[in-house]
Amino acid sequence: MKAHIITIGDEILIGQTLNTNAAFIGEKLSQIQIKINGASIVPDDETKILKEFKRAFDSNDLVLVTGGLGPTHDDITRKCVVDFFETELVESEEVLADVNKFFEARGRILTDTNRGQALVPKAASPIRNSKGTAPGIWIEKKKKIFICMPGVPYEMKEMMERFVIPKLEEKLERKSFIVVKNLLATGIPESNLYDRLGNMDELLQGAKMAFLPSQFGVKLRITIECHIEVDANNKLEEIEQKIRAKAGRYIYGKNDDTMESVVAKLLIDRGLKIAVAESCTGGLINNRLTNISGSSQYLERGIIAYSNGAKVELLHVGEDTIQKNGSVSLEVARQLAEGVKAISGTDIGLAVTGIMGPTGGSENKPVGLVYVGICDSNICTAKEFRFGDDRLLNKDRTSQAALEMVRRNLLGIPYDD
Amino acid sequence: MKAHIITIGDEILIGQTLNTNAAFIGEKLSQIQIKINGASIVPDDETKILKEFKRAFDSNDLVLVTGGLGPTHDDITRKCVVDFFETELVESEEVLADVNKFFEARGRILTDTNRGQALVPKAASPIRNSKGTAPGIWIEKKKKIFICMPGVPYEMKEMMERFVIPKLEEKLERKSFIVVKNLLATGIPESNLYDRLGNMDELLQGAKMAFLPSQFGVKLRITIECHIEVDANNKLEEIEQKIRAKAGRYIYGKNDDTMESVVAKLLIDRGLKIAVAESCTGGLINNRLTNISGSSQYLERGIIAYSNGAKVELLHVGEDTIQKNGSVSLEVARQLAEGVKAISGTDIGLAVTGIMGPTGGSENKPVGLVYVGICDSNICTAKEFRFGDDRLLNKDRTSQAALEMVRRNLLGIPYDD
Repeated sequence: MKAHIITIGDEILIGQTLNTNAAFIGEKLSQIQIKINGASIVPDDETKILKEFKRAFDSNDLVLVTGGLGPTHDDITRKCVVDFFETELVESEEVLADVNKFFEARGRILTDTNRGQALVPKAASPIRNSKGTAPGIWIEKKKKIFICMPGVPYEMKEMMERFVIPKLEEKLERKSFIVVKNLLATGIPESNLYDRLGNMDELLQGAKMAFLPSQFGVKLRITIECHIEVDANNKLEEIEQKIRAKAGRYIYGKNDDTMESVVAKLLIDRGLKIAVAESCTGGLINNRLTNISGSSQYLERGIIAYSNGAKVELLHVGEDTIQKNGSVSLEVARQLAEGVKAISGTDIGLAVTGIMGPTGGSENKPVGLVYVGICDSNICTAKEFRFGDDRLLNKDRTSQAALEMVRRNLLGIPYDD
Repeated sequence: MKAHIITIGDEILIGQTLNTNAAFIGEKLSQIQIKINGASIVPDDETKILKEFKRAFDSNDLVLVTGGLGPTHDDITRKCVVDFFETELVESEEVLADVNKFFEARGRILTDTNRGQALVPKAASPIRNSKGTAPGIWIEKKKKIFICMPGVPYEMKEMMERFVIPKLEEKLERKSFIVVKNLLATGIPESNLYDRLGNMDELLQGAKMAFLPSQFGVKLRITIECHIEVDANNKLEEIEQKIRAKAGRYIYGKNDDTMESVVAKLLIDRGLKIAVAESCTGGLINNRLTNISGSSQYLERGIIAYSNGAKVELLHVGEDTIQKNGSVSLEVARQLAEGVKAISGTDIGLAVTGIMGPTGGSENKPVGLVYVGICDSNICTAKEFRFGDDRLLNKDRTSQAALEMVRRNLLGIPYDD
């Protein structure tokens, strides 16, 4: 099955919005072994959209379109679909019920503009939208499939994962299996990790591996293609074990794990509670910890002690300690962690202080200098990190390093190295 | 001049690499008023690349290609250019000197593979590459321009900014000017905003406007094309005024503004300080406020009062209030805001409490129910919101609604409606 992806929207063409939709769709299709023949971006222009629909549908088995399904005048995809398939719009009772429910839940009144969302092309099966009001469109013709989804990323993603991918999988006849696994490492630079893993051919034996670095660490993406699924999985397992033997302490998770989901699971499994004092990250660590459903099981409270006053009053950091060492120091990080643990009565206290930039650095304490403090029932300690000069990346890096300290604490991995 | 952008590479098609190159090129071209007709992504496949070259060059005045110019076997763009323009490869002395210099500077030895980078299509002027070894390609034929650049983003960007854009500007005969402005609205659903703005033709008078919704609100992108630049700007100003007259209270910023940058500026301009108590958003509001450099000027502290204990102990919310109303209630939101203002000695206290989901809802208090409390020196109040069922989107929406309450407070816009 050969696929083509069409993204509709001037904002994508002129670079105001990054085309994350095409990337997401491409990734999901390739995960189920559908070959992507090409992708295109088309402006909000009826003639150009119709021309592209024709070109894509003529030379592919599957066409996926995103964008232009909303309720306003600039959304013309549905109209183009009606013209292209020479059909007409009919009101779908099912979709109208969805739209009604959506508005009721939000205590809003349904306008005619909204009601118009329930009109779907007669030739199509509507795809239900659980995150918004515009339904997707699924049309089958001449053994080919044509799909339209909204351009709002979270609406499109939900449709892809819940409906489009499962339904496409039903229709596929499998000849070979590609398995993919991502191992997530942090606390080690890409090139050091590469050197540590040694000879690649020996390690991979025909499999493929990509190093994908970001501010959160390095993702290792391993891809294996086999005729028999179990062979591919066995080979993958073998490679993973070899990698873990060489760099296991840096690997905090796999696939869709995040550092916060890994730490959350460890805390819940052990029935432990944490409290977090943040200075430079300004709430990011607590925010990440509360992105996980059920976070009240392990997060007791957080303090964003941005001013020195807040550090002293709320967390009992010594005024003399700040005066002697400065608020960005190993000792203040340690005392912040101690303080937040003490006032919250939790098992673990975590704290960060640092200089995120772009301003505020000095020769002795440059932008990117960070201290992470951590306390459990046995020991209170802190560690120094040096990051870069970009404020938002530094916040991400600091939050990742702090949560990695918690992971290492819980697993008994030394903080150093 | 009509342009088409081609990105070459399997990694883009299968979503492993985000197509930031096409976005960058699109943005740069539209800044110099070149109209982008379309964009496409093509796999590393000779037949498909040639077919796309032909299609794009036939119906455009300008084609820009990135990717596949490197030294290894999988880079086939140059070969395709040679075939497409029926030319041959010749060694460019100028490029060879560049490549030699590049290797000398890095103390590396030039191999035959590297030397091959100095071969350029005879029909082309090479574009020098100051960040790498693969030269770009500039071909003019039949009054049309065909450009190839490397796929490495920083090499491509350098070529675009230093060479391609200035040279294209020389060739342009400006006949019209395109100006673009984004107005950022929040607190009003897309369809209500649309209805409020009334007749679009009357409002826009030939200009174009797109509604771009997200969890943070609705972006209105207005585009105007005129023969005289000042006319375009005047017309834009006129449309903006009309929109503001009809929906001004919802518009919190324009272009690259974010809600946090708008609120930060208002607080700094007035010399005011804020403290924020978060329950359900778990640190996100404080995190957003500290994403702005210089945030210590206006943020005193934040409290993530996740447990009821923390709400009572740290922020002096009445235990009886929680028992009577529940922790997700109008009164608790109000008391949290009052408490955080009082303990911090700030001008404004902001607080949120709510149910982010996916679990934790009940019939009376469903997932998505949120209360935002705000206190200044005159008044303490709170407002109810009802959002959806996605945890992370609800956190975003809640943080946006809370910061919007601060903006309205500072500008004297009523909270209701």
